Amino acid sequence: MTPGSAALGHIRDRVDRALQAFVGQQRGVLLAAGDDLRPGADSIAALLAGGKRLRPAFCYWGWRGAGGPDCPEIINAAAALELLHAGALIHDDLMDASDTRRGQPSVHRQFEARHADRGWHGSADAFGMGVAILLGDLLICWTDEMFHASGLPADALRRGRPVLDRMRTEVFAGQYLDLLGQAVGDETVAGALRVVEFKTAKYTIERPLHLGAALAGAGPEPAGDGGTVRDGSLAAAYTAYGLPLGIAFQLRDDILGVFGDPAQTGKPAGDDVREGKRTVLLAIARSRATAGQAKVIDRYLGDPLLDEAGTAEIRAAITGTGAVAECERMIGRHVSEAIAALDGAPMTGEAREALAELAVAATARDG
Amino acid sequence: MTPGSAALGHIRDRVDRALQAFVGQQRGVLLAAGDDLRPGADSIAALLAGGKRLRPAFCYWGWRGAGGPDCPEIINAAAALELLHAGALIHDDLMDASDTRRGQPSVHRQFEARHADRGWHGSADAFGMGVAILLGDLLICWTDEMFHASGLPADALRRGRPVLDRMRTEVFAGQYLDLLGQAVGDETVAGALRVVEFKTAKYTIERPLHLGAALAGAGPEPAGDGGTVRDGSLAAAYTAYGLPLGIAFQLRDDILGVFGDPAQTGKPAGDDVREGKRTVLLAIARSRATAGQAKVIDRYLGDPLLDEAGTAEIRAAITGTGAVAECERMIGRHVSEAIAALDGAPMTGEAREALAELAVAATARDG
Repeated sequence: MTPGSAALGHIRDRVDRALQAFVGQQRGVLLAAGDDLRPGADSIAALLAGGKRLRPAFCYWGWRGAGGPDCPEIINAAAALELLHAGALIHDDLMDASDTRRGQPSVHRQFEARHADRGWHGSADAFGMGVAILLGDLLICWTDEMFHASGLPADALRRGRPVLDRMRTEVFAGQYLDLLGQAVGDETVAGALRVVEFKTAKYTIERPLHLGAALAGAGPEPAGDGGTVRDGSLAAAYTAYGLPLGIAFQLRDDILGVFGDPAQTGKPAGDDVREGKRTVLLAIARSRATAGQAKVIDRYLGDPLLDEAGTAEIRAAITGTGAVAECERMIGRHVSEAIAALDGAPMTGEAREALAELAVAATARDG
Repeated sequence: MTPGSAALGHIRDRVDRALQAFVGQQRGVLLAAGDDLRPGADSIAALLAGGKRLRPAFCYWGWRGAGGPDCPEIINAAAALELLHAGALIHDDLMDASDTRRGQPSVHRQFEARHADRGWHGSADAFGMGVAILLGDLLICWTDEMFHASGLPADALRRGRPVLDRMRTEVFAGQYLDLLGQAVGDETVAGALRVVEFKTAKYTIERPLHLGAALAGAGPEPAGDGGTVRDGSLAAAYTAYGLPLGIAFQLRDDILGVFGDPAQTGKPAGDDVREGKRTVLLAIARSRATAGQAKVIDRYLGDPLLDEAGTAEIRAAITGTGAVAECERMIGRHVSEAIAALDGAPMTGEAREALAELAVAATARDG
């Protein structure tokens, strides 16, 4: 994340502390069931120590933009989104067979190694998978616990609840579409963008903003028709800002997944290539590739043994298609669109500045 | 389940209808993300059509016993526990590599078969696993959504919330202990009983009763010290009833897992043996086995190719140790203890009768 992003830094430390307090208390509940749960509690704490805290930041500024006061309660409620995110990451890494997360072994790999090191019975793979499923489930459940124990008044929580519900159904639906797209071999740009809408744009930006606004009493609550907002203007502005920004955010992620510096991203170089991720960047590259470039892309995409030379070769092929330049243009256009949506929106000036700053921080980052 | 169990039948139809209404509404949310989500929605609906509805029944009678009135709102809140349970079952079947659930292929197997039948890209196994993780996650999240949309007053939900939270952390902790016990090769009766306490007795009986009582305003809310109750007598009676009954319930399950009739259990004959489940029944059998009996148990336990002849042989060996008779004695003793705990407890007479009836229904069943 770009250093000096005040709108994010301001929130991050407070979110970190709220998470530490919550997870410390949950550790007690786990250890009451048995001291054997310590490695699980440690693994959760280590995973939660990292992360950019983007979703809590958008939730917080969604609240402030709607006129909500700065207070510890909104930090607690916003921080709950990090628990959901951490749980989803554990499950995602398992589904993608990812080895690394936030510069550490992914959770399933940690417990696979623990099993293997100790020479335990049965399959180390299955043990790693089982523990990762359970720890992810725990974190997903803790989202609700932290949200409802945030200290916000009952009527605020009642207003926010349907937005949190919608956000979760959408993110898992988006992941399902992603899995299915991989399985059926959908390599279109449109297919990749549909996944980004649900899996990233709504989940990371639009819904956290809506959640903050709903908690502050400024709507939206999802209406019966399946997602439109009841009380128009602020929620609509958050959507008009959030959806293009979400796409720009994901495009930056796509570029970092192929070209990023491991020291910054916490993932090995070319990790998205190794995992065969079906990104918008790759869909654009494919749609523009010459026969020779397509051959290089097909050779390395999804190759678990991809090495430095292969990474260099596929990077050159992708760049050669013009896909990276096209993604950079799209990022610029979408960020401008997002920031323009803030003009004249019925929100506080402080929030407008913070959201403009967050738009840049979320898309100009190098990790 | 024993036919004619009025205390259960009374609730079951109403829980079924509440679940159908909720899942029908969620189907709309899923299909709004894409028609491709239809098979996922269908799979969830089919899984939720089955089940004994024990946890909702205990939650309902926990409420009634505390003086709560019969009303649709408590049925909705109680039914939410079935969503948690269905999600946990999907994940459990994945971890145990179970092929069958409620007489149908398990969810991961359904989607593995879908992938294979259509000749899709990549691994059918990985696709089945991914969909099972996501659908389980969705169901676990929907628990909170249905609970908070039950229509119960905000202060009732606020009182119930910590019990639901505790219940979920305990069940996933119990599953973790189970995985770990399998890995380290803990074959003791004490180890198996510790898993049963968290994974079954608290989760299936004690906490649902406590949840009903808390919703009705009769405590308990877990206190800061990690599990004791604030307002003593009713919650204490529910614990004194629930923990022994939970053990008896699981022992019946253990026996059915080896000796049950597939037409009644919805699982193949000897399924627990094939999966190498570390049950109390097997721990007792091992602790009493002669060298010859131990050899038979070791030969077949965890054998995925276990056939009819092998099933008959291991059944004879287990019966020969006296473990089945011992389990039946334990069931009788624990059910009596549970029913005795209802005497003089500060609850309505109707609830006392229903809980006594449920104790028998939950432990005398043949499927």
